[in-house]
Amino acid sequence: MKALIYNGPRDVSVTEVPDPKIERPTDVLVKITSTNICGSDLHMYEGRTDFESGRIFGHENLGEVVEIGNGVDKIKVGDMVAMPFNIGCGHCHNCESSLTNYCFTMQPNEGMAGAAYGFADMGPYDGGQAEYLRVPYGDFNCLRLPEDAREKENDYVMLSDIFPTGWHAVEMSGLQPGDSIVIYGGGPVGLMAALSASLKSAATIMVVDRHPDRLRLAEEIGAIAIDDSKDDPAKEVLDRTDGLGADRGCECVGYQAHEPDGEEQPGITMNRLVQSVKFTGGIGSVGVFIPQDTGSPDELGKQGQIAFDYGLHWFKGQSLGNGQAPVKRYNRQLRALIHAGKAKPSWIVSHELPLAQAPDGYKRFDAREDGCTKIILKPGA
Amino acid sequence: MKALIYNGPRDVSVTEVPDPKIERPTDVLVKITSTNICGSDLHMYEGRTDFESGRIFGHENLGEVVEIGNGVDKIKVGDMVAMPFNIGCGHCHNCESSLTNYCFTMQPNEGMAGAAYGFADMGPYDGGQAEYLRVPYGDFNCLRLPEDAREKENDYVMLSDIFPTGWHAVEMSGLQPGDSIVIYGGGPVGLMAALSASLKSAATIMVVDRHPDRLRLAEEIGAIAIDDSKDDPAKEVLDRTDGLGADRGCECVGYQAHEPDGEEQPGITMNRLVQSVKFTGGIGSVGVFIPQDTGSPDELGKQGQIAFDYGLHWFKGQSLGNGQAPVKRYNRQLRALIHAGKAKPSWIVSHELPLAQAPDGYKRFDAREDGCTKIILKPGA
Amino acid sequence: MKALIYNGPRDVSVTEVPDPKIERPTDVLVKITSTNICGSDLHMYEGRTDFESGRIFGHENLGEVVEIGNGVDKIKVGDMVAMPFNIGCGHCHNCESSLTNYCFTMQPNEGMAGAAYGFADMGPYDGGQAEYLRVPYGDFNCLRLPEDAREKENDYVMLSDIFPTGWHAVEMSGLQPGDSIVIYGGGPVGLMAALSASLKSAATIMVVDRHPDRLRLAEEIGAIAIDDSKDDPAKEVLDRTDGLGADRGCECVGYQAHEPDGEEQPGITMNRLVQSVKFTGGIGSVGVFIPQDTGSPDELGKQGQIAFDYGLHWFKGQSLGNGQAPVKRYNRQLRALIHAGKAKPSWIVSHELPLAQAPDGYKRFDAREDGCTKIILKPGA
Amino acid sequence: MKALIYNGPRDVSVTEVPDPKIERPTDVLVKITSTNICGSDLHMYEGRTDFESGRIFGHENLGEVVEIGNGVDKIKVGDMVAMPFNIGCGHCHNCESSLTNYCFTMQPNEGMAGAAYGFADMGPYDGGQAEYLRVPYGDFNCLRLPEDAREKENDYVMLSDIFPTGWHAVEMSGLQPGDSIVIYGGGPVGLMAALSASLKSAATIMVVDRHPDRLRLAEEIGAIAIDDSKDDPAKEVLDRTDGLGADRGCECVGYQAHEPDGEEQPGITMNRLVQSVKFTGGIGSVGVFIPQDTGSPDELGKQGQIAFDYGLHWFKGQSLGNGQAPVKRYNRQLRALIHAGKAKPSWIVSHELPLAQAPDGYKRFDAREDGCTKIILKPGA
Repeated sequence: MKALIYNGPRDVSVTEVPDPKIERPTDVLVKITSTNICGSDLHMYEGRTDFESGRIFGHENLGEVVEIGNGVDKIKVGDMVAMPFNIGCGHCHNCESSLTNYCFTMQPNEGMAGAAYGFADMGPYDGGQAEYLRVPYGDFNCLRLPEDAREKENDYVMLSDIFPTGWHAVEMSGLQPGDSIVIYGGGPVGLMAALSASLKSAATIMVVDRHPDRLRLAEEIGAIAIDDSKDDPAKEVLDRTDGLGADRGCECVGYQAHEPDGEEQPGITMNRLVQSVKFTGGIGSVGVFIPQDTGSPDELGKQGQIAFDYGLHWFKGQSLGNGQAPVKRYNRQLRALIHAGKAKPSWIVSHELPLAQAPDGYKRFDAREDGCTKIILKPGA
Repeated sequence: MKALIYNGPRDVSVTEVPDPKIERPTDVLVKITSTNICGSDLHMYEGRTDFESGRIFGHENLGEVVEIGNGVDKIKVGDMVAMPFNIGCGHCHNCESSLTNYCFTMQPNEGMAGAAYGFADMGPYDGGQAEYLRVPYGDFNCLRLPEDAREKENDYVMLSDIFPTGWHAVEMSGLQPGDSIVIYGGGPVGLMAALSASLKSAATIMVVDRHPDRLRLAEEIGAIAIDDSKDDPAKEVLDRTDGLGADRGCECVGYQAHEPDGEEQPGITMNRLVQSVKFTGGIGSVGVFIPQDTGSPDELGKQGQIAFDYGLHWFKGQSLGNGQAPVKRYNRQLRALIHAGKAKPSWIVSHELPLAQAPDGYKRFDAREDGCTKIILKPGA
Repeated sequence: MKALIYNGPRDVSVTEVPDPKIERPTDVLVKITSTNICGSDLHMYEGRTDFESGRIFGHENLGEVVEIGNGVDKIKVGDMVAMPFNIGCGHCHNCESSLTNYCFTMQPNEGMAGAAYGFADMGPYDGGQAEYLRVPYGDFNCLRLPEDAREKENDYVMLSDIFPTGWHAVEMSGLQPGDSIVIYGGGPVGLMAALSASLKSAATIMVVDRHPDRLRLAEEIGAIAIDDSKDDPAKEVLDRTDGLGADRGCECVGYQAHEPDGEEQPGITMNRLVQSVKFTGGIGSVGVFIPQDTGSPDELGKQGQIAFDYGLHWFKGQSLGNGQAPVKRYNRQLRALIHAGKAKPSWIVSHELPLAQAPDGYKRFDAREDGCTKIILKPGA
Repeated sequence: MKALIYNGPRDVSVTEVPDPKIERPTDVLVKITSTNICGSDLHMYEGRTDFESGRIFGHENLGEVVEIGNGVDKIKVGDMVAMPFNIGCGHCHNCESSLTNYCFTMQPNEGMAGAAYGFADMGPYDGGQAEYLRVPYGDFNCLRLPEDAREKENDYVMLSDIFPTGWHAVEMSGLQPGDSIVIYGGGPVGLMAALSASLKSAATIMVVDRHPDRLRLAEEIGAIAIDDSKDDPAKEVLDRTDGLGADRGCECVGYQAHEPDGEEQPGITMNRLVQSVKFTGGIGSVGVFIPQDTGSPDELGKQGQIAFDYGLHWFKGQSLGNGQAPVKRYNRQLRALIHAGKAKPSWIVSHELPLAQAPDGYKRFDAREDGCTKIILKPGA
């Protein structure tokens, strides 16, 4: 089959590779029809992780089941399914506690937890930017889609990662209906956090970014756009909240944060959140951070550290939730909202590309080209 | 009346001052019979805060009501009462949400929240290391004690701060029955966290400290003592938890943390917690941290910052809760446990001193004199 | 002043009575500008409770503060305020636990809990269907309204009872975003439950009633109307939920439930809910039920009992929450949603009447006159 | 193999039946070493359910794995395992929400949910009162036991049902540390509820029963025994709680409740709970109730109904949780407490019998013979 292969920093190509096969009785094979390029793919694409050359990218996958192992009971050939980017076994301590983001079974390294398709440090699993994908524990890792699966495919594919990830950021922030919230980062995840906050009846939603296309998308769903290339965002938030700060905040940027024209400062967003969020407020952080970052221009950053305003964070009595989203905790509910027409996460999609054009898509998305807000690859097209 | 006055760094004295008076119809006056010296008093005693000379210390107070304002309905003269160290109004947004630790009304500075008796930056209120104490909003800020109040006075006085504070640390950590937990700091608050974890049916409780008297007290209630002057505590915790880390962790040290014989490193405990706690684990931090610390030997510390292993914290998907305890959220329940004989927090008390000996008590507690684990002042004695 | 007085079954009149006065330093006096007739007023109006002749009705009150006691600190003369129908002291065990619906202090009967303005068995407090109202513990029992208070007065007045009550029903049902919910009763409270479910992102909202005006209002906010004079409502719900039942259900009818043309059967709605709600589903019940009902035509009903399908309820593993709403737990959040323009509960208002026309309003509302969905009295008009 | 077979009301025998086999790749076969007789077995034994003749009883099972299917990854031959009485698939909506008590996949009847070994209406699965047991979805339905499995086998076997069931009753009641709780029913489940309440730091635990052996066991773990053959239990509870009622209550009796010497009254316990529990209190009900009971002497009972004091229940604002326990939600935590020596549920065991004596065990347990509090069958003995 054809698949998108990582060759090295900023070098990917579509190549012929062996087809995946059923390896265990509980496996499922899926013919991929939609697979997104994700912001976290870019960390790997840029060579800022230890993702291995020759592997396949792609953890936001949707498609049609074409084969099942003889231990699979629920999933049937022909089902349209969306796969959470996390791969869980369904029976370890974490999976059973709805912490499929930190499955013990699928992560090969002792003392660690969590696995994903085509992801650095998350196990050896191939990604889905390809024609076919092997899904371990298929009954557990495939979400079946309703009869409008084809029609709303660009919405449902968001269930694999960014919609639940944005939702998780808001959930960890502790948002209650009527609250105000500030979201740092207006990329796909930040925009999904804004959509989630809206669905959870936040009274005021503020999105901080510097790209006009993203800020415009935020405004389209009723959020207030704050352009941090023009204004001090923490001051803007305080001004709009009677000087108290937002009730809740989300980190949707990650460790490659930087000033509009400046160098990377991995802690800049977290410190702005501490300033922008009220005493007793909550922060949810889903932007990617890593324990070591040899490519960081920042001395602390190389060791995975940030210079953190912990004195103020503690003094304000804020809470902080961190890490990748447990997609399965939310994807059934969010599927229902899409199906009922109450959520339409595809409003951020700017490009649908055939797999052959994936390398070009990576280049443009990595360059933050204006108007390139979210790319869906269509391997079958 | 007589009261303990702060004159300057490491200089306190018992002095005659004007008696407090009923100032508002909702005030109550209490004759103090027990008032503890707290570890957070020592930050102020050492001159490491901007606590003003001439003010009275003391936020862990218990006594007998001697006068009430004409707007007081519940509290009666003669009631034995314990006062939460937090002063709340009972009707602001935070107090109504059980966040009395961050009352808006009683904190005089705009944009800030939280008040306490005799505490730096927490409003102008006198402390209770004195013969009498004025209690604002007496119906809200006095916890009535049952008929065994005198007999168990050394237990009930712990309801004013350290028992609820230790409980809050454990609560914020997310402990479930059967979990393992590591508590950094075996001072009075850390020991109360250990007691709380035991009452909440933790399966394994580890307390990290270096003082034999404290470690012995931890062992007396069934905890495992880890001596960080002898062993690497994070390694010890990993060894005792199959390499996975403890389910939960508590910070009960604060910003003056340091190696057994070394200089202050405000972030050392937090980073050890990140290492010691498992993927998906939770951390509760009640040790005091401050937004600015001009006396810090550490460059980041001067600005209230720590070099934080945020990459690892995020990667492990840990949660973090911070700040002073909302005493009123817990003090009724804990009162019931003391009354029923199921909790006996006074086991840590090493000294009962008359008010006149308070200066000596401060000196010995500040010196971490062996066997000086908790001092109760008895102004009436 | 003028006030609406209960003289006996179906007999009320507007009469001159003494003005209320500040009785305690913590009292506040409010000039009422909006005060609703509530469905629970009708139980009293019809003589089906032991509400005393000569007392004033009215527990859904909004107005302007005209006098404060000298122990009042937050509320100022001139503030526009909405009063929760529950009267709480703010310092008893229940009030401090956000259970102001069951205040111990304000309920005069030993062993009971809960108080309200102008309500049977809820203490001696006068209602607000009058020119003025005395509000005990004014700082605790007045919710201040923002600068658009006059403009959105018909929305904000719903904060005193029915909007939080509908919200509470949904909250007790355990609704999660994406869930389906069935609401029995399309009166003002049921419609507010539907609005609340919508704000909480239910995927499917079904409202069961038989009055076309109410069903139309339900449809206006996107709910599915089920007419139980035409269809078996439990069967309708099962048909619309793949035979599984709704995820959640609400009782918004109360003990005077009856078939469209039949006699009262106090348990009919609860049993339909048990049938209509799925295995593991949740039910929130806010329709009024009473421990004794001498006027009931039903033998069990006289003793406050229902013939309850408990075998099925238990077998399905359903949960059940009951009782009046703790308005203060929700009214700040809901105020924010009204202020932000995200909730407009006044869409159900059919009549605004001067106080003088209150007797006529009662007659029409009690008769369930078509188009008479919610009446606001305007004493100042 | 040999197994205990139900022949008809009060008629069971140990018979030779075919050995179970691996039927699906995800199955596991367990050699049973401990299997309890449960109070809910007695409903079936007495012929009060539609349990089919010829089937095997036994849903509280523990043993050693002797064979695994080729789709099983976690469980290994030789593992000592305890099986939750609920059989879950691990991937349906309910299982993924920790509601394994209501698995959709394993329950064969459309529109119903929940499955168990050897249980009426819970699917066709054989029970474990036999030499061997087939366990579907073995990785999900076997809890591995630590190295002290043999030594503490009589404790660990309680993880299969009654310890988690008692825990669930307390959990659904909403118990907080320091609360009082009343438990109706001092059988094995009621005693486990008492143990659970103690582990959760209840301040006061009251157990209502009439059998001296059970009341004595309750007292052995610090509970107050209330003998309802001598005293009015609701009055006793009110007397011991200042007339307010217990904070929480548990139903551990079920539909065959009756006065000490009287006829069955299925609702008697629920109504006593409503009386005994405070305003705002919570009730957890795990005693078995059924939707139809043709054998009931009570007219309402035949239809699965009770004459319920719903008026008072609603008026007091109580909450109610119902149904079988989701064992997997708790069994890991409780395993840790047994392993750490903090819980010893085997204190209630009165008899260990070889399988051959099972018929005699049933007879004695059904007769409520004095001193026969809990029987463990030992098929291997």
